[in-house]
Amino acid sequence: MIKAQDLSEFHQTPNPSQSRAVQMTETVSACSFIYTDWALIETQFDPAQLHHKETVFTIGNGYLGSRGSFEEGYPRAVAATLIHGVFDDVPVVYTELANCPDWLPLMITFNGERFRLDQGEILAYERRLDLRSGLLSRAVRWRSPSGSKVDLNFERFASLADEHALGVRCQISSLDFEGLVEVQASLNGYSENKGFNHWEQVSQGKADPGIWLQVRTRNSRIELGMAARLTVSEAESAIEVSNVPGYPTQTTTVQLSPGQSVTVDKVVTVFTSRQVPDPIQAAQTKLAELPAYPDLFKANERAWEETWRKSDVVIEGDISAQLAIRYNLFQLIICAPRHDEQVSIAAKTLSGFGYRGHVFWDTEIFILPFFIYSQPALARNMLTYRYHTLDGARRKAKDSGYKGAMFAWESADTGDEVTPRWALPTDPYGADIRIWCRDREIHISADVAYAIWRYWQVTRDDAWMRDYGAEIILDTAVFWISRVELNTKDERYEIRDVIGADEYHEHDIHNNAFTNRMVQWHLEKAILVYDWLHAHFPENAAQLEEKLQLTSKQRSRWQDIVNNLWIPYDSKTGLIEQFDGFFNLEDIDLREYDSRTQSMQDILGMEGASKRQVLKQPDVLMLLYLMRESQEFPYSLETLKKNWNYYAPRTDITYGSSLGPAMHAILAADLDLSEEAYERFMQAAMVDLENVRGNADSGIHAASCGGLWQALVFGFGGVQLTQDGPIATPHLPPKWNRLKFKLYWRGDWHEFDLRADAKPPAL
Amino acid sequence: MIKAQDLSEFHQTPNPSQSRAVQMTETVSACSFIYTDWALIETQFDPAQLHHKETVFTIGNGYLGSRGSFEEGYPRAVAATLIHGVFDDVPVVYTELANCPDWLPLMITFNGERFRLDQGEILAYERRLDLRSGLLSRAVRWRSPSGSKVDLNFERFASLADEHALGVRCQISSLDFEGLVEVQASLNGYSENKGFNHWEQVSQGKADPGIWLQVRTRNSRIELGMAARLTVSEAESAIEVSNVPGYPTQTTTVQLSPGQSVTVDKVVTVFTSRQVPDPIQAAQTKLAELPAYPDLFKANERAWEETWRKSDVVIEGDISAQLAIRYNLFQLIICAPRHDEQVSIAAKTLSGFGYRGHVFWDTEIFILPFFIYSQPALARNMLTYRYHTLDGARRKAKDSGYKGAMFAWESADTGDEVTPRWALPTDPYGADIRIWCRDREIHISADVAYAIWRYWQVTRDDAWMRDYGAEIILDTAVFWISRVELNTKDERYEIRDVIGADEYHEHDIHNNAFTNRMVQWHLEKAILVYDWLHAHFPENAAQLEEKLQLTSKQRSRWQDIVNNLWIPYDSKTGLIEQFDGFFNLEDIDLREYDSRTQSMQDILGMEGASKRQVLKQPDVLMLLYLMRESQEFPYSLETLKKNWNYYAPRTDITYGSSLGPAMHAILAADLDLSEEAYERFMQAAMVDLENVRGNADSGIHAASCGGLWQALVFGFGGVQLTQDGPIATPHLPPKWNRLKFKLYWRGDWHEFDLRADAKPPAL
Repeated sequence: MIKAQDLSEFHQTPNPSQSRAVQMTETVSACSFIYTDWALIETQFDPAQLHHKETVFTIGNGYLGSRGSFEEGYPRAVAATLIHGVFDDVPVVYTELANCPDWLPLMITFNGERFRLDQGEILAYERRLDLRSGLLSRAVRWRSPSGSKVDLNFERFASLADEHALGVRCQISSLDFEGLVEVQASLNGYSENKGFNHWEQVSQGKADPGIWLQVRTRNSRIELGMAARLTVSEAESAIEVSNVPGYPTQTTTVQLSPGQSVTVDKVVTVFTSRQVPDPIQAAQTKLAELPAYPDLFKANERAWEETWRKSDVVIEGDISAQLAIRYNLFQLIICAPRHDEQVSIAAKTLSGFGYRGHVFWDTEIFILPFFIYSQPALARNMLTYRYHTLDGARRKAKDSGYKGAMFAWESADTGDEVTPRWALPTDPYGADIRIWCRDREIHISADVAYAIWRYWQVTRDDAWMRDYGAEIILDTAVFWISRVELNTKDERYEIRDVIGADEYHEHDIHNNAFTNRMVQWHLEKAILVYDWLHAHFPENAAQLEEKLQLTSKQRSRWQDIVNNLWIPYDSKTGLIEQFDGFFNLEDIDLREYDSRTQSMQDILGMEGASKRQVLKQPDVLMLLYLMRESQEFPYSLETLKKNWNYYAPRTDITYGSSLGPAMHAILAADLDLSEEAYERFMQAAMVDLENVRGNADSGIHAASCGGLWQALVFGFGGVQLTQDGPIATPHLPPKWNRLKFKLYWRGDWHEFDLRADAKPPAL
Repeated sequence: MIKAQDLSEFHQTPNPSQSRAVQMTETVSACSFIYTDWALIETQFDPAQLHHKETVFTIGNGYLGSRGSFEEGYPRAVAATLIHGVFDDVPVVYTELANCPDWLPLMITFNGERFRLDQGEILAYERRLDLRSGLLSRAVRWRSPSGSKVDLNFERFASLADEHALGVRCQISSLDFEGLVEVQASLNGYSENKGFNHWEQVSQGKADPGIWLQVRTRNSRIELGMAARLTVSEAESAIEVSNVPGYPTQTTTVQLSPGQSVTVDKVVTVFTSRQVPDPIQAAQTKLAELPAYPDLFKANERAWEETWRKSDVVIEGDISAQLAIRYNLFQLIICAPRHDEQVSIAAKTLSGFGYRGHVFWDTEIFILPFFIYSQPALARNMLTYRYHTLDGARRKAKDSGYKGAMFAWESADTGDEVTPRWALPTDPYGADIRIWCRDREIHISADVAYAIWRYWQVTRDDAWMRDYGAEIILDTAVFWISRVELNTKDERYEIRDVIGADEYHEHDIHNNAFTNRMVQWHLEKAILVYDWLHAHFPENAAQLEEKLQLTSKQRSRWQDIVNNLWIPYDSKTGLIEQFDGFFNLEDIDLREYDSRTQSMQDILGMEGASKRQVLKQPDVLMLLYLMRESQEFPYSLETLKKNWNYYAPRTDITYGSSLGPAMHAILAADLDLSEEAYERFMQAAMVDLENVRGNADSGIHAASCGGLWQALVFGFGGVQLTQDGPIATPHLPPKWNRLKFKLYWRGDWHEFDLRADAKPPAL
């Protein structure tokens, strides 16, 4: 085992020239991308990949995310700027993140011919996302329909230094064009969620200088103010404002000759009434104070440098994996709320309309570890979001006939349950499909408790646990008392009618091992928290007892449930049965379906899959992974091996849930199944970059991003936690020369620099 | 009885000066309206009535309808232009009429101050809808926030002479304003159905002169082209085009001094790919050919004159009723397809989003009689729509496990069933309500047959019956064979599990008298049509038999069902039981609820209402009305009297269905219940004008409009049909001096000029 180094020199900046050298020499191309160590480069434009690439090239700053649609638009483009917490009502799924006014539009017209990629000819093209600074750039050499040749160099960023500031730049160069270039810079108030525009126009006008737009969501009545200023360098030119309703625009016209260039900068500010009482005033004030584009970008670069200092991961010997891990972490960083504890990361981040901006267990179980171990303040923001949604969780419990707090399977602004009840077909004769997760996938409450416990273990943030965490853990524990059932015949507690982690089995699922053990674990920790609070903060304990109507009676019920909750583990075989009767279901050999391109549920039908021993995603194995970090029951390497051999071959790891591959990568690494571990790791790493599942158009797979980091640290790094801090037992994939990352642990940073040649000692 | 006069001089124009005299002398004001004989006048602007008045001031031309929203916009306005047949997909309700690009926008700015009614001060205001010419005008004297006084006189029309041509005009006069007036005339491609924009932008540009916009529906892929041209009179002024995406705009600027005026005209053309293969080309070509605004309006005026010549109704002595009947007929005329037999009139016409542009029995039973008797070619268009949707009706039958054609309760472009299955709450814990009409309200198929028969009886249009009508009547009759059940114990046919006309009773409704008798009647007529076709058009009969797989076997089944279908009529009491067991339900005395302002279903709950003898709308009485015209079973004045006395007091006529009042007015007139008849008549007449039910914002109550005409003709006029044509037995309300209307009957026009002083002979 390699002991983590406690490096005081950690805070030094990485050597940029060295890193640049790698970028220059080692590149890999796939899916029309070139991967370098810090940049993702697209070398040709393929309209068939329009929506996939819009997702991939999402930028953001923890306040908003903006998809990589073009400044000049494109037919059927799905442009989106999503801001944390800006929810509005929508039928069937209750609420969704409203697509905010588009700050990107920049229309460039050459003697009346508007630049657009679906007309004229693309002579050269490169789009590049620089992960180190969050800069998205695009270079296009374009021949207009009438034959003029021009170069356009766009770039944009959302400032990580100032979350209300955004920048777009375009350098326009003439190769053989002679004439007038018109540049229209607009704010587009007609942004839409797949056709639906959540905004009412309130007002708009001229800023001094610039333009502004004030809008309000239809139902939730959130106001948004956006302001923008166009500037032109290298030319004297008048800028005019036009005020078509909902589309304020600044226009300038410049004479251009061959060999000449002009650069236009558009800086934008945005606020909502979630931050300030008068967002349009705030946007205009900030716009007036904003520095010019270059200085704005410099501040952003510095903020990114600071962020990567804590969160970067280095892989040597595998440039695809190196780029992919940085890319996946980049996507998590840009959607993590930095200054807002009333919001959290949604399943599809701020990058697309999938799952409507709703928050799932994905956040606590898959995404949060990266933040807990590298930017714990952001992890705390997201856990505090759960605290602020406790009232919604209480309403849900009450509506379902239970006590305490029962977290929503899908959670939005209030914490009320917003999982749709129905999937409704467009075919008027198709069957409506009832979605049962809201009713049955109850493990979410234990998942939240798990993340809180982990955060507390890593940070020792007792103040937060006292003020926020304890109330969450205890009131959800109160819920479990009302949810478990006492089977008097077998003298045990049971939890019936659930959906476990594996969603292929929805009906009549009783005593799901994952759920039952997570609940038992939750109650074990609730007792510890309860006792700790009493011991250290008796006043807070008393207040909380009054608020939650807690007495020692509940504590003893928790203990009774912990002692008697049925966990279907067979100590003779070491096998854990996924739920009552799982082993009696018809068996399946997935090798017979090797050539498929669909999920097993698509192939067998919902009922067909539910009657077979086929899993959408790890369930027993997921439990073993979660119990692995602190080596708790039922985790042991032996148990893992037995259950891996049983469940892994029965799991739809290719087309089932995107949550699966990274988890399998960790466990396979644990079991020294090096090839399998690497294959699963890359499957997770490429889910968005290479659109492995064909659904990247609807947004980043955030759980997969977070799982990837865990696979790297806990799988290939083999990190486990001890009383002395984290220790590593590396299982590096064959071609990796080096794996370097750092972890925060109780006030210190632990840097791990794992080398392929440093053979780990035998276990 | 007064025999209808067969007037050859009928085609003379009414004396305009005489009519004008009435308008000048007799007016009534209500709900901030002044009613004259031909004009509806609003004398003050009340933002609280914004959406109601937008509906009321809808104009149209049988091709499109445009709500009465303001040219300059208003916060939270619900602007809409709906074009027949332009459906697009939408969740839950499958498909809806897409709100088309808005042709109205005209923004007028005085020295930078934009004219808008929510700012500045309204010094004088009048909005007027001239029913005789379809011209909507608005005169506003406005003081701008900075104090300038100006007059604005807007007017608009959708040409009835050329359904692809529209016009907007504004005369701008300065009272004390000195400075620049900027006028922006736009096409707005961001129109929306309550937030949802069905359109993809395809292209846009400059016309010569003018602007154009090309869009396409997202899913149904219907293309729409719109073009517009702004002209300025009384001033020389340059007109510029700006091309913000989705919002092409022409702008002109004029210098204005006190006492000066300028008039701007905007003429607009619109086509969709439902009419022409290249709609944007067609729109531009027509725009180039279009005459100036005044000539365009003259042609429209002539077309309206021609239409009213056939359809006008004169009431003397009651100006509210006079205006109301013309207003209601106006609303029917402007939504009746004149050149398209693939579409029909929706429940809310083309005036709002209620019921999403879907077609119900409202059309055949309530609306069509007006057209059958006054503009039969339009009635034929709408019945032919049902022919074109037969394949959808066949798919519905097949999906439901039946044979033949089963018409959709809600029908759109294909005729497939588009009634939503669910009403979904916005409250995440609210109950989803299953809507059963699609499954159970099956009388629609007999209603269509009824309308076809009536059309045939009135017009003797044998060619249409041969080519279209027969197939509808026979294939729906095939459906009934598969739908009825044989009760062998009682040796009778039954129809179980239906919803009748009364929608307060939805579950376990068997042998609804209305449904059973309508089916029996339908099959009686099917046999007649079958025999008629064989006798007169044996070749067509043979073709149809092959197509529908009809043999004499079906004919004898029809006869057997006619003979043995159970009709719950008690010849001893003369009472018809609404359905099996209705008389056993808990009784109710609606007088105890006199002060209510809600429907009885709102008060009692869905289940509460279903367990009581309370009706949403006439059911047995509806049947009696439908059998009245040709005096068929079970209609007789005696039966009517008995059933009226039973059912009328149990019907929620105030807050139940808006389909009820006009029907009750007819039957009350029949029974010489003069006061009741008039009260019900005015209740129907004012449903939209006075927003009697509080839901006029979502569109015109078309069935009520059509029912009103029937109440006038068949109720107060007492018209019945005989072999010699229609005869009248008037029951005029006390204050009416005269009732004048005309009916088409088998090639001739019959004018009825009924006077209060011409006492009808005793019955």
